[in-house]
Amino acid sequence: MSTPTAALPAPGTTGPVRVVGTGLLGTSVGLGLRRLGVDVVLHDPSRTALALARDVGAGRPAEAGDGPPALVVVAAPPDVTARVVVEELAAHPDAVVTDVASVKGHVLDELRLAGADLSRYVGSHPMAGRERSGPSAAVPELFLGRPWVLVGSGTTTPAALAAVRALAVDLGAVPVVMDADEHDAAVAVVSHVPQVAASLVAARLQEADERALALAGQGLRDVTRIAASDPALWTSILAANSAAVRAVLADLRTDLDGVIAALDAATAATGPETVELGALAVLARTVAAGNAGVARVPGKHGGAARPYALVAVLVPDVPGQLARLLTDVGEAGVNLEDLTLEHAAGRPVGMAVIAVLPGSAAHLEAELTARGWRLVR
Amino acid sequence: MSTPTAALPAPGTTGPVRVVGTGLLGTSVGLGLRRLGVDVVLHDPSRTALALARDVGAGRPAEAGDGPPALVVVAAPPDVTARVVVEELAAHPDAVVTDVASVKGHVLDELRLAGADLSRYVGSHPMAGRERSGPSAAVPELFLGRPWVLVGSGTTTPAALAAVRALAVDLGAVPVVMDADEHDAAVAVVSHVPQVAASLVAARLQEADERALALAGQGLRDVTRIAASDPALWTSILAANSAAVRAVLADLRTDLDGVIAALDAATAATGPETVELGALAVLARTVAAGNAGVARVPGKHGGAARPYALVAVLVPDVPGQLARLLTDVGEAGVNLEDLTLEHAAGRPVGMAVIAVLPGSAAHLEAELTARGWRLVR
Repeated sequence: MSTPTAALPAPGTTGPVRVVGTGLLGTSVGLGLRRLGVDVVLHDPSRTALALARDVGAGRPAEAGDGPPALVVVAAPPDVTARVVVEELAAHPDAVVTDVASVKGHVLDELRLAGADLSRYVGSHPMAGRERSGPSAAVPELFLGRPWVLVGSGTTTPAALAAVRALAVDLGAVPVVMDADEHDAAVAVVSHVPQVAASLVAARLQEADERALALAGQGLRDVTRIAASDPALWTSILAANSAAVRAVLADLRTDLDGVIAALDAATAATGPETVELGALAVLARTVAAGNAGVARVPGKHGGAARPYALVAVLVPDVPGQLARLLTDVGEAGVNLEDLTLEHAAGRPVGMAVIAVLPGSAAHLEAELTARGWRLVR
Repeated sequence: MSTPTAALPAPGTTGPVRVVGTGLLGTSVGLGLRRLGVDVVLHDPSRTALALARDVGAGRPAEAGDGPPALVVVAAPPDVTARVVVEELAAHPDAVVTDVASVKGHVLDELRLAGADLSRYVGSHPMAGRERSGPSAAVPELFLGRPWVLVGSGTTTPAALAAVRALAVDLGAVPVVMDADEHDAAVAVVSHVPQVAASLVAARLQEADERALALAGQGLRDVTRIAASDPALWTSILAANSAAVRAVLADLRTDLDGVIAALDAATAATGPETVELGALAVLARTVAAGNAGVARVPGKHGGAARPYALVAVLVPDVPGQLARLLTDVGEAGVNLEDLTLEHAAGRPVGMAVIAVLPGSAAHLEAELTARGWRLVR
């Protein structure tokens, strides 16, 4: 993985690139650049993390006689990012410096307070992550097809912006230029508030009875999955983006108060026929507003959600059956866009839900039926 | 599908079973019973829905000369359930009557007010559903392995309870006896409050900029997926369970108020070092409480979430490659517990994440590497 691959295009990034912080993101940057043959110098205050990143092929530690870096990528924890950027800008007076912290206005404010040279600084936020963290979870494909937000300082030079844009492109990401406020408001609504909501819902489960939890379905699992996130990391993200997150949460609380008042009205009524229509309308409007909002969420493949057709097939729960099904899908000449498996506890059969382009569904259903599969319609 | 299958056990349910309401649930009940050879008589105020249910094999319309039903399953919309149960109890004085409404105390209160014969009534709540609705979405496997809550009236006879328990078992569900209050409190916390939270988060996306939405990731998709639910159905569910949902939402609002106050404190601070530790502690405690709650959610297979090992493999995005991978997994003798696909927009490669029992992961990784697959570690 550390040797350049002939088939890959020539990198736009000029080395040496200095990566400060060899966690998941920094190590993944190093791995991606090394595949393109770019010289990567790694630094981390933890010698273990540094050695791990080197061992997986993300680059090499600094050596005596190294020339100055052309680009510095600061991939430190969010609450120390600004300080490290200031140090790196000072230590490498000809280098472009970027960071990967997930809140941008806050870092920029601190850099301004510190009087840093902002002409050579570009804020980055690669929208990529994994459920595992640390250098051992790093992969060169981490950024593939993901948005990479670029935030100029106001005095950032075009050359500095171009250097960080080239880094994003080299790693397979899609560069998006935003200002810090636009970025921070965007991540508040698409990431930080959903995180808070998932945590608040999951927190209610702490005291719930075991028998209540046994009734949980996929809906609860989906809503609360990200509630498993790291408290220390999220405390610093939320504190750093406090104003933007607060604004969205305040709107959410207003709607929540409306729901609570409507539920009070429904409880006070003596029967369903006596609930005031106004209270029911508030509940219906809340769910309908959610319908309208979720319809705007882009699909897994980016862009608007594509209206795939779903073909559900019963699959005996023994090794090889799913492979046989997918072989049949391939032989039918149909491209599988997505696949979801649904198991039933203790039952010898599961259901595979195959997403295909709508025009292919009827053909696929016919082919699978002809091959003896039992479809669930 | 309408002929009994020799391999299936003899049903515990005695027919004729009358199903009132041929939507998703009623039609699925009919399909499951017909597979066991039980006589099913269908009724629906909509002649179209009734004809559709008959055509998919869920049973037959009533005929002149039919004997009285032994069991009536009321699968009407939640807000008319109690009225229909009252009518069915009166019309069939020897039948056991059950309903499938997702809130139970409310139905029982209305039946008591109406002076119904509660010795023959059992409330049911099969915890099953699909994203599609109506008779055409019905499947006999809908209840397979899912909990089926049974709620007695206090005067329900053991024979009536046994009849509805047999129905649940015949349909492959797992019967769970609860009283109405326990059931309603349980679904408030595991289903109704998550639904409200998903709607409130998704509602915030209505006014968000297109460029903000383009930054959305899997977390937002997961949290908001169920926000696509039907407003009319959810209005009646929330109104029927108003007191229990209100109690959980009030606790959630208290925590939300704490988060908002902590964000205000963070915003008022002049830099990260000056944020009061108390404010940061509130944020950290909120995320940690979510960690503790989500850890209690049972896994996809029922029971506690099993700690599967994940093996991530790069898969060229061309037909047949995924089938080839799963064939290799099968030939390695490893049982695939779950499979998730991650695509990258516009890229010729995707990632398949295979969940296996922890003891199988190393073996599978070695086998797949030997067969030329590229693993992501």
